[in-house]
Amino acid sequence: MPSEEIKSLSLPVGWKCYRSPEGQKYYVNISTKAVWQRNGSFDDASCLSPQSPGSTSPARRQNKEKEIKETKITINCVTFPVPASALEQQLLKPSEWSYCDYFWADKKDPQGATVSGFEVLLQKQLKGKQMQKEMAEFIRERIKIEEEYAKNLSKLSMFPMAAQEEGTLGEAWAQLKKSLADEAEVHLKFSSKLQSEVEKPLLTFRGDNFKKDMKKYDHHIADLRKQQVSRYAAVEKARKALADRQKDLEVKTQQLEIKLSNKTEEDIKKARRKSTQAGDDLMRCVDLYNQAQSKWFEEMVTTSLELERLEVERVETIQQLLRQYTTLRHETDMFNQSTLEPVDQLLQSVDPAKDRELWVKEHKTGDLRPVDMDI
Amino acid sequence: MPSEEIKSLSLPVGWKCYRSPEGQKYYVNISTKAVWQRNGSFDDASCLSPQSPGSTSPARRQNKEKEIKETKITINCVTFPVPASALEQQLLKPSEWSYCDYFWADKKDPQGATVSGFEVLLQKQLKGKQMQKEMAEFIRERIKIEEEYAKNLSKLSMFPMAAQEEGTLGEAWAQLKKSLADEAEVHLKFSSKLQSEVEKPLLTFRGDNFKKDMKKYDHHIADLRKQQVSRYAAVEKARKALADRQKDLEVKTQQLEIKLSNKTEEDIKKARRKSTQAGDDLMRCVDLYNQAQSKWFEEMVTTSLELERLEVERVETIQQLLRQYTTLRHETDMFNQSTLEPVDQLLQSVDPAKDRELWVKEHKTGDLRPVDMDI
Repeated sequence: MPSEEIKSLSLPVGWKCYRSPEGQKYYVNISTKAVWQRNGSFDDASCLSPQSPGSTSPARRQNKEKEIKETKITINCVTFPVPASALEQQLLKPSEWSYCDYFWADKKDPQGATVSGFEVLLQKQLKGKQMQKEMAEFIRERIKIEEEYAKNLSKLSMFPMAAQEEGTLGEAWAQLKKSLADEAEVHLKFSSKLQSEVEKPLLTFRGDNFKKDMKKYDHHIADLRKQQVSRYAAVEKARKALADRQKDLEVKTQQLEIKLSNKTEEDIKKARRKSTQAGDDLMRCVDLYNQAQSKWFEEMVTTSLELERLEVERVETIQQLLRQYTTLRHETDMFNQSTLEPVDQLLQSVDPAKDRELWVKEHKTGDLRPVDMDI
Repeated sequence: MPSEEIKSLSLPVGWKCYRSPEGQKYYVNISTKAVWQRNGSFDDASCLSPQSPGSTSPARRQNKEKEIKETKITINCVTFPVPASALEQQLLKPSEWSYCDYFWADKKDPQGATVSGFEVLLQKQLKGKQMQKEMAEFIRERIKIEEEYAKNLSKLSMFPMAAQEEGTLGEAWAQLKKSLADEAEVHLKFSSKLQSEVEKPLLTFRGDNFKKDMKKYDHHIADLRKQQVSRYAAVEKARKALADRQKDLEVKTQQLEIKLSNKTEEDIKKARRKSTQAGDDLMRCVDLYNQAQSKWFEEMVTTSLELERLEVERVETIQQLLRQYTTLRHETDMFNQSTLEPVDQLLQSVDPAKDRELWVKEHKTGDLRPVDMDI
């Protein structure tokens, strides 16, 4: 996308304004080809006055005209290198995909509002807390299902079906029925441990303090950005003041040359002094701005690394709790198996002959066989 | 309990009537000490007439008086040896507690009604059918519980809790939720097999024909007893007729000796002939009775052994079906364990660094770090 000329501004004579593909305005002096950006480096003096800071000889000016390119860009009051000139910038933590390397810029959300990179990180943490809450709810639902199952098995184990079966078969049957009560116990224990070893930790491992901490980080970082914004406004103001002073100096110098007015050398010197002062003001404002940005930068690195650490902790904690879930499930299936052991044993011992003996002993009516009647 | 004399009967002169501890009436001739039982062996002739069947010399008579004891007893028209004289009777199937050895006598139920030994065996079989029906109901209840459990697990597996969790942790969580659906499948399969491999066979392995067969046995055996009863009545009648004939002979003989009447030798011979005939009738009736009893006896042995076989079959079949139940339970617990394998694997693979990389790649806002603004 080529730069487009912006025609609407009222500019000093000989200046044109363009917008770069990134959306930045920049100004070009038609005769000197000097480029000036509102937030970029600009060798003003070389274009407007040979005595302002950084003044150069025309020769040097020519060279500088060729050298002056956009190398930095300020977006939402944060100053970045232009991508092409950032080739030497290395990640703070290469190969780690660290939070501190990837969330410097703001972005726009789907509604078009501006969201800082830090806020994206913060939202991630808050969402993480929501995730653990929902996981705990899931576990709670499982607990309810297990308790219902246990209750049903327990009830059924007490039903009197075939309670009259006797002998070794009756014993095996009674144990089979009892095994349902044992199974119920197993599932109750499962649900109880689910509550204490999975659900509860999921709910509590980030306490209420977590949200407060996140708020604190949020406000602190936001405050530093605000400071940066206000320092940036000061820079803009100082730039404008310098531009005004320089224009005034230029006009007065021209007027002197063409003997347009009765301005004396004294007036020129005054204008030049004011111009220099404005330049000093600008330098100071830029300095304060850079300090504010540095503070924000340091806080960003520290806090984003803390959020990164918290996220690792969250993932590892959840991993461990879910492993505890599967451990409890494994345990439960094993305990469940063991409820069958006494049943299997008694089924093994089922003996129709023994049962007949027991039953006949109890219910026989008489073992004397009939004999012929005698006359 | 000693025998008690029953004084109320009008007996021939010289006879007394007693009741045995078992409740049987028997008669004693005071002078000869001959014992006569309505249903026992009795050498009538030796007491009343030297020419009736089995007549003996007085000497022999004396001996026999000492030898004649109660050796048999008829209860409800079935003739048994008196316990003391049954020492040589051995069980048909010793050491087996076989049905055919222990259900000869009738008994009284709690309400005082007479119940045959065979009926006790029959009731046992009918009760067995009731037992298997109740066991099937129990299994049906288990099936319902399993289906409810499966339905609940299946529903929960589809709840959206923490669906937004991403990366390796998100995958593990998603698999954990899915494992509930897998568990539901396992329990559905369990309930399905319970139905086809345990419940259904319990309901059907004795078909409706079973009750019909039992009824047939019942009626057949009951008919044979009825025949025995009617033959026994005939014996009683014949005994009485013989007693009458013998009394008549005795009276006529006495009268001849004391020249009490003008009865001739011819009259005596006629009376003696009638007595002999009555004796023959009695022999025939006793013979028919013994045949009827034998028929019943044989049918009892055959049928009770069949019931015994059926009972063994019932116990073994139920044992096998209940073993199938425990096999299915074992299977279920194992299949249930295996639903955790993919979950365990994915939990193993949870990697906070990888998840950070994935998330940062998707959500990063900018990796260029801020730089100082230039003037």
